[in-house]
Amino acid sequence: MKISLISVGTEMLMGQTVNTNAVYLSQELNKIGLDVMYHHTVGDNPRRLRDLIDLAYKDCDVVITTGGLGPTQDDLTKEIVTEVLGDHLVLDEAILDDLKQNFKEQGKPFTDNNRKQCLLPSKGITFDNRKGTAPGFALEMDGRIAICMPGPPYEMKDMYVRHVRPYLEAKSGQALRFRDIRCYGIGESRLETELLDLIEGQSNPTLATYAMEDECYLRITAKADSEAEAEAMIDAYMPAVRERIGAYIYSEQGEELIDVTARLLFEQHITVSCAESLTGGLFASTLVSVPGMSAVFDRGLVTYSNRAKMEELGVSEETIARYTEVSYETAKEMAAGVRRVSGSMLGVSCTGVAGPDGGTKQDPPGTAYIGISFGNETYAKRIVTRNLGRNENRHSTMMAMLYEVYRCAKACADAEAPDEGQEKN
Amino acid sequence: MKISLISVGTEMLMGQTVNTNAVYLSQELNKIGLDVMYHHTVGDNPRRLRDLIDLAYKDCDVVITTGGLGPTQDDLTKEIVTEVLGDHLVLDEAILDDLKQNFKEQGKPFTDNNRKQCLLPSKGITFDNRKGTAPGFALEMDGRIAICMPGPPYEMKDMYVRHVRPYLEAKSGQALRFRDIRCYGIGESRLETELLDLIEGQSNPTLATYAMEDECYLRITAKADSEAEAEAMIDAYMPAVRERIGAYIYSEQGEELIDVTARLLFEQHITVSCAESLTGGLFASTLVSVPGMSAVFDRGLVTYSNRAKMEELGVSEETIARYTEVSYETAKEMAAGVRRVSGSMLGVSCTGVAGPDGGTKQDPPGTAYIGISFGNETYAKRIVTRNLGRNENRHSTMMAMLYEVYRCAKACADAEAPDEGQEKN
Repeated sequence: MKISLISVGTEMLMGQTVNTNAVYLSQELNKIGLDVMYHHTVGDNPRRLRDLIDLAYKDCDVVITTGGLGPTQDDLTKEIVTEVLGDHLVLDEAILDDLKQNFKEQGKPFTDNNRKQCLLPSKGITFDNRKGTAPGFALEMDGRIAICMPGPPYEMKDMYVRHVRPYLEAKSGQALRFRDIRCYGIGESRLETELLDLIEGQSNPTLATYAMEDECYLRITAKADSEAEAEAMIDAYMPAVRERIGAYIYSEQGEELIDVTARLLFEQHITVSCAESLTGGLFASTLVSVPGMSAVFDRGLVTYSNRAKMEELGVSEETIARYTEVSYETAKEMAAGVRRVSGSMLGVSCTGVAGPDGGTKQDPPGTAYIGISFGNETYAKRIVTRNLGRNENRHSTMMAMLYEVYRCAKACADAEAPDEGQEKN
Repeated sequence: MKISLISVGTEMLMGQTVNTNAVYLSQELNKIGLDVMYHHTVGDNPRRLRDLIDLAYKDCDVVITTGGLGPTQDDLTKEIVTEVLGDHLVLDEAILDDLKQNFKEQGKPFTDNNRKQCLLPSKGITFDNRKGTAPGFALEMDGRIAICMPGPPYEMKDMYVRHVRPYLEAKSGQALRFRDIRCYGIGESRLETELLDLIEGQSNPTLATYAMEDECYLRITAKADSEAEAEAMIDAYMPAVRERIGAYIYSEQGEELIDVTARLLFEQHITVSCAESLTGGLFASTLVSVPGMSAVFDRGLVTYSNRAKMEELGVSEETIARYTEVSYETAKEMAAGVRRVSGSMLGVSCTGVAGPDGGTKQDPPGTAYIGISFGNETYAKRIVTRNLGRNENRHSTMMAMLYEVYRCAKACADAEAPDEGQEKN
């Protein structure tokens, strides 16, 4: 099925709001195998909206609108859509009762213009709005389908997931499911190379690789008659995928590295502290973005000056004099130092050159050393980022620290469950 | 003048790329007083692109396209636009020579398909591309204007600023300039109230208020025959604006609080260290996002546990026992502590409840205490965020810390230049 998306609202034409609805819906519709042919944004103008709908049906089976369903006079999406498709609006008494009840519960007076929100196409299917007041609907007339949803993204997304996606899947007669296999420490081109025969040999499921900042992922997409069947088709591919790239996978369910790492730290009761130089608090800040982090995170020492590294972490003056502050040795002493002063089970550190200036020929901007102290081991690793900029370098270094912490916690989890064998994140 | 924006590219229809070009151009075009009537996104399809251009000229004087100017066969924006307006393409020899020279300098072979980029409308004005290879152009035929620019945002923005804006300003016969007056510590509705008579009384310049995360700003926009005249009209308003809201202004040039604060710290040679609890490193990380911060930033201590607060900062056990860790007293001891251990001139701290859980009836999630130790003073302030979420609360608290540091540094700068009188950021 081919789809045209129409977003109604002047705030986007002013550049005050980014059209995130079009991005979300395009991604979601592509995931279920539907093709988006157009995005349009237009103000509350009947003639222009009518023109766009007419244009859409030249190529598309479905027009999806967001916005313009509210109670005020200039909200007219519903009226125009219904008119173009040849239906008319009728008052939905059930929706009206719900809405009145809703206002009553919130202690707000029900003003008469709210009745407008309860006028719905006589031949449509109403979609209730759990996050706001304006209901949405689908209307099919003579093979042309229109779907209207409210504009606020949280209302729209809730309605899409509960009503619109099932409606469209039923119409298209197929289920499409995908799974994102997230990897760290492997570039997209190598990921593709490792999987090339699987990628090229298959049409269903399909495999495709995608690059993100500092990581990449594999998406496996399957089409089938049912959701369960599509999931089973993806499952069947996992052994081959794990065999090729298992060493780089940190989540088979599309999760973020921070969330996987936090869960492992919680489950394994591993307490953590960090000592940061070039990331300047970004690692600690990323950790504590997860609720409940105080259960395992004790402290983070942002030792930006050399004096701070010596005073706070006990890095020796001799080490800095001999190896400089940007070195394996300093990173190791920082990790061991923060572990010692905090009494945490794991100490992680970084030191390096954030840029744009500074650094040496050996260690130019974008070079960092990551230190880890955990169990009986204290070690350091050198990373060289793509040096795309100061804050990109800081992000890459933070991700490298996070991945080392993930590896330590994962090793503990694996040691606990030695019989399970295969990786399950 | 009325404008239709057409973005050409399937990656947006797949939801893989956000259409930032439409946002940027809408903002910029509005700034110079032009009205955007439509955003359209479409793939490389001749008929659909032609339909959109035809539709645009029903309402608009100008169609601006981005994307589809490259060397490959499926790049066809230029061809369709030129055809619809009734012109034809000719080889621009000067552009061809430039492009060949460009390839030679980069040591890349000049492939024949690159000639396509040098085909331009016979009656158009060519816009050179300093950031890439595909030139853009403006073409006016029978009162209808088309402007075509490349799709990559950095190429497009450079071309817009150097060529397209001057071209449109010349066509519209006026210059429109604006200035953003950025404020902290005052809500948008109060800002509007303070300025209401100015806002309501004026049509040129216009004054409008805008809300951002944790701050708001006033935009003054003036229309005149020349840029200098428009700037002078804005200048004339500044005394009245400073009189009403001067206490809340931190930049009269639309700068970010972090950049204004960093500049003041550098200029005043004020060394800083921080002690963070609920922000968890976000304050330090924000500071070091500015290049050169190592000149004034010594260390940041993320003391998440109470033990860390006592060990690292010397917060007394008694203070925590008596007032809890979320209190004026703890915030003050944290600020004084980090100043003492670091030897920095300024110590700033925070402690509070990030949420979503925790807190007390007196101090629910979103409550934070900010401590400052500077000169002869050590004090603390209590803030209550709107509690929109854990990371929103952390951001609000970080901004409150930053603003306190700004105030200290600003007071030093003002003391140094007592005769200047009026605020100039």
